[in-house]
Amino acid sequence: MTKVEINPRITAYPMPVVIVGATVDGKPNFMAVAWFTKVNSNPPMMLIAVGKKQYTGEGIKANKTFSINLPGKNLVVETDYVGIVSGRKEDKSRIFDVFYGDGTTPMIKECPLNYELKLVDTVEVPGSNLFIGEIINAYVDQEKIQGHQPDLLAIEPFMLVETPANHYYPLGSQLADAFKVGKALSTEK
Amino acid sequence: MTKVEINPRITAYPMPVVIVGATVDGKPNFMAVAWFTKVNSNPPMMLIAVGKKQYTGEGIKANKTFSINLPGKNLVVETDYVGIVSGRKEDKSRIFDVFYGDGTTPMIKECPLNYELKLVDTVEVPGSNLFIGEIINAYVDQEKIQGHQPDLLAIEPFMLVETPANHYYPLGSQLADAFKVGKALSTEK
Repeated sequence: MTKVEINPRITAYPMPVVIVGATVDGKPNFMAVAWFTKVNSNPPMMLIAVGKKQYTGEGIKANKTFSINLPGKNLVVETDYVGIVSGRKEDKSRIFDVFYGDGTTPMIKECPLNYELKLVDTVEVPGSNLFIGEIINAYVDQEKIQGHQPDLLAIEPFMLVETPANHYYPLGSQLADAFKVGKALSTEK
Repeated sequence: MTKVEINPRITAYPMPVVIVGATVDGKPNFMAVAWFTKVNSNPPMMLIAVGKKQYTGEGIKANKTFSINLPGKNLVVETDYVGIVSGRKEDKSRIFDVFYGDGTTPMIKECPLNYELKLVDTVEVPGSNLFIGEIINAYVDQEKIQGHQPDLLAIEPFMLVETPANHYYPLGSQLADAFKVGKALSTEK
């Protein structure tokens, strides 16, 4: 196998897509985010990377709260829209039914899974603010629950793939059992 | 749609899986990581969340360098193995061909895409160290390149889905064009 050096700026992994909600200038605003990850189990924390010029970031800094909403593939057009248009220019909340749970953070009713987070830390890198939030509430559509857990297969999330071209992809067919198939390679029997 | 509150500790999004490499105690070590994200474009930076007790974290702290290797679905057993067994107990480097590129960071030849990173910041959350690295080199298998970019579809990455059960999934069939389909919803014509 010959390895070839490529431009390290190319992002080449499948990125799950969520919609981040925040109150900005007194109004609910939403933006698509593909740069995020869980970072802590207990208490549960997630991190999102938001460009320093993004309108949503202003609301997160001001209110110290944000939401993470997981869209199903039926919302791919809406999700793409809130990723390409700034809340500075258009009122993006008009395309969703907004709800607030127990708190003051705008969430999206049409998204089957909603996390409400309080900001616990902000880390700066050159172009982004990394907002670390603790999940204080989680909501799921009743019909997308299986045994007290959200059924991710029923939610039908999708991923952003940037190479070879910018497209969204859903999950395919089950490949293997996690935390199990690898036991075969252990030297401990 | 009725929203139901669930335990906020449940992680419910599809998590792409990579294998992180580091030199620990003078030997190459690898671990599967599903908590990571890109965080900056220029210079390109990625963040990985590693449990504080993980063996790999010791090597990253000591050497201030790590690699991120993207496995294809043909490596699902190997990837699962390096996620469930600690390098403290078993020599996990024995199952891969290790290469070093221009630097001193162990990378996995069988993974079609390899990033070499230098540690630029470490952020602590209660249970994890968040290692932020700048990508200093990127390598791709020659036959997985299309127009100077890694062809992610040819690489065949996979995602960890934890709910309703722990399974790995590849990508499905193309859903929509990114940064394009959402334009239909813009109020600016």
